Amino acid sequence: MAKIIEPRALKGFRDFLPQQEIARREILRTLEDTFRSFGFVPIDTPILEYTEVLLGKGSGETDKQIYRFRDHGDRDVSMRFDLTVPFARFMAAHRNELYLPFKRYHMAKVFRGENTQKGRYREFTQCDFDIVGVDTVSADFEILLMMVRSLQAIGLKEFIIHFAHRGIFNRFLAANKIESRSEEIMRTIDKLQKIGEDETRKQLTETAGQNAAAAVLEYIKPGKTFEETLDKITELSGGASDDTERIREVHRCAVEAGIEDFIHLDPSIARGLDYYTGIVFETFLNLLPQIGSICSGGRYNDLASLYTKEHLPGVGTSIGLDRLMAALEELNVIERQSSSAQVLIFCLDESLNPIYHRLADRIRREGIACEVYPEARKMAVQFAHAENKNIPIAVIIGEDEVEAGTVSLKFLESRESVKGVDENEAIFRIDSYLKSSKG
Amino acid sequence: MAKIIEPRALKGFRDFLPQQEIARREILRTLEDTFRSFGFVPIDTPILEYTEVLLGKGSGETDKQIYRFRDHGDRDVSMRFDLTVPFARFMAAHRNELYLPFKRYHMAKVFRGENTQKGRYREFTQCDFDIVGVDTVSADFEILLMMVRSLQAIGLKEFIIHFAHRGIFNRFLAANKIESRSEEIMRTIDKLQKIGEDETRKQLTETAGQNAAAAVLEYIKPGKTFEETLDKITELSGGASDDTERIREVHRCAVEAGIEDFIHLDPSIARGLDYYTGIVFETFLNLLPQIGSICSGGRYNDLASLYTKEHLPGVGTSIGLDRLMAALEELNVIERQSSSAQVLIFCLDESLNPIYHRLADRIRREGIACEVYPEARKMAVQFAHAENKNIPIAVIIGEDEVEAGTVSLKFLESRESVKGVDENEAIFRIDSYLKSSKG
Repeated sequence: MAKIIEPRALKGFRDFLPQQEIARREILRTLEDTFRSFGFVPIDTPILEYTEVLLGKGSGETDKQIYRFRDHGDRDVSMRFDLTVPFARFMAAHRNELYLPFKRYHMAKVFRGENTQKGRYREFTQCDFDIVGVDTVSADFEILLMMVRSLQAIGLKEFIIHFAHRGIFNRFLAANKIESRSEEIMRTIDKLQKIGEDETRKQLTETAGQNAAAAVLEYIKPGKTFEETLDKITELSGGASDDTERIREVHRCAVEAGIEDFIHLDPSIARGLDYYTGIVFETFLNLLPQIGSICSGGRYNDLASLYTKEHLPGVGTSIGLDRLMAALEELNVIERQSSSAQVLIFCLDESLNPIYHRLADRIRREGIACEVYPEARKMAVQFAHAENKNIPIAVIIGEDEVEAGTVSLKFLESRESVKGVDENEAIFRIDSYLKSSKG
Repeated sequence: MAKIIEPRALKGFRDFLPQQEIARREILRTLEDTFRSFGFVPIDTPILEYTEVLLGKGSGETDKQIYRFRDHGDRDVSMRFDLTVPFARFMAAHRNELYLPFKRYHMAKVFRGENTQKGRYREFTQCDFDIVGVDTVSADFEILLMMVRSLQAIGLKEFIIHFAHRGIFNRFLAANKIESRSEEIMRTIDKLQKIGEDETRKQLTETAGQNAAAAVLEYIKPGKTFEETLDKITELSGGASDDTERIREVHRCAVEAGIEDFIHLDPSIARGLDYYTGIVFETFLNLLPQIGSICSGGRYNDLASLYTKEHLPGVGTSIGLDRLMAALEELNVIERQSSSAQVLIFCLDESLNPIYHRLADRIRREGIACEVYPEARKMAVQFAHAENKNIPIAVIIGEDEVEAGTVSLKFLESRESVKGVDENEAIFRIDSYLKSSKG
């Protein structure tokens, strides 16, 4: 006998069992339905790309994490580490085949050889959506509205999108003559929740001096109301501007659409990437703030500058599916299913297989998922199978039923039996039961 | 200005534009719905695995095509080249968490560095489904029935599943004392359609002698009816056996379920892999036989022998999504969509954004996909946008409408206008229009 190979997955990589995968696919479908209802369309790009294409934009940190190798043709290739860089390449490559404004979503796996000790995975799924080709209030707001409707659609009720504006923040930094320290300041602010105000003040003081630190801490503290916060950052950034007006208009749209309770102007949101130039946002769950943002993004003024001279402004968001699923599980929003079948046709006698399968096929045509037990085993085994898989209805057909041209049913939860009805009546009872148990 | 990087994809890899990706996702959903209606459940496995795990089973041919490299931890890793090997590892790893019989599907990308000149891609999508843990007529037939219902669900009408039985064939080879040549003979038979009968005879004669070649050619020729073919192969394989009975029972199920016209006993189907031990099948489109099988598989008696001592028999099929999509396009079964929105709300005045977005949100709640044009451009530009994206209805709200509290509509195909109705009436008209234009 040949040596047995250990059936192990790579560190940081996971199998998804049916219980998990059913829920994941359900969530992806719901997100997709929401994206489509806003007129967004899907794209896909290769998992493997030229390293030059992917790393044009990568930071040193990304470089170290990327899965990079030489292929059979000695090309320097890498597995994608996010969906933003491939989208930029995609827009540059296909610009003439696409109409602007272009609204796309992309739900796919990305790969990073990260330290797995933080509970992070090396293969994970992102759901990105962007509007490219316009720089308007309407596009900014639509992304926020779609975030709210998407999270609601998957069953989340209590969450807040914290948003700020990078342009206003930049003017504030300039007014305080600390714009050269912008990157370090943003990085420190990003850690505020984690390290607390005192440590933030200490680090800011080291970076930019005591006065600047005080000014930054004042700037990032939200006021009691939207207006109070907006007035404050307007003043601290040197007065009203297109950017402060943009924020006011976005808020006006939110009030009219009735989602103002889900969005919160929070000047401490920095998203420390050079890439962003306008509105930026992060989304926190009220009941699980510690897991961090489940849905983040912002406005950028030049998506694809590495690959084309055309200026492509846009606004977009990324949902990390794995973190989201973890949150949904913790909040018990996910129903754990191990099967999709609602009816199990028992196999009492294998010579009756043709009848079992014909009836199963008929039940499926009624929109009811149905499976046939694939061999003649003891009734107890078949009942256990139905119970393990949470299948609520058993259809039992033995010699007696065949002779009489009838069907018997057993409803597993109530243990109620229905004996000797014809097929039409059986299907009617199955359908009624499923409809009433849903309600 | 920084150097522009050419936005090229790797050879053999593709971007999917919205038109293609909408259709692909639609097909995947329809397949998934069908699989679920049979009680199959989804799993997922990592794209990257230990090379040892993936290549335990690989032939020399696969070895050369696999994307293999050393990761950051100096592990010898590879990208999966099919979904069968990862499934075998999965079953061995999670055996205690799964109930047998286990019916799973897996729809995912696989990678092979194949010669792209044949029109093949290096990244492609497979849809696999298997029933593991039983070796019965019922399981064999269920896979055939699900193939028929899946292909019908995506709009295919004329196709035939050609099936045979490896066990009967093996007994035929033994009866003719040519079982030691089994592999070469199967490989030759597999090429029958391509190389023709004369060349097949020549190659079989070289392999096994003139008499054996004649016997093989006689064996693989189908009879006029199912019974005639079955009787012939029964006789040529030394008489009735469990395997010939299995085929007879499968056919009896097909007749009862009314799918006998979609299946065809064809002893020339060999599927030259050692792996298969029972029923084997390939599916051809009547109108496009030249593209080859779009859906193939069979029964194996030991799925995961590389990873576990447990004997896991099963039966399953793989659909190649890319070949299937090419066929659907050629048969004009696919409707090309470039958008999912059915309503475009025009932007006449950006100060009315709050009203546009509130109304869009309301229309979406009625189950109607709706987008808002994101900036105030000329009406002609916005009409062109709607036409380019095939959006049939425009909602127009300017100052007059706002003052009167009304909405105007324009149906793009008929160029009919509806002016000054209230929101309820507008939504009613939109809904009626969409329902009637679907019918």
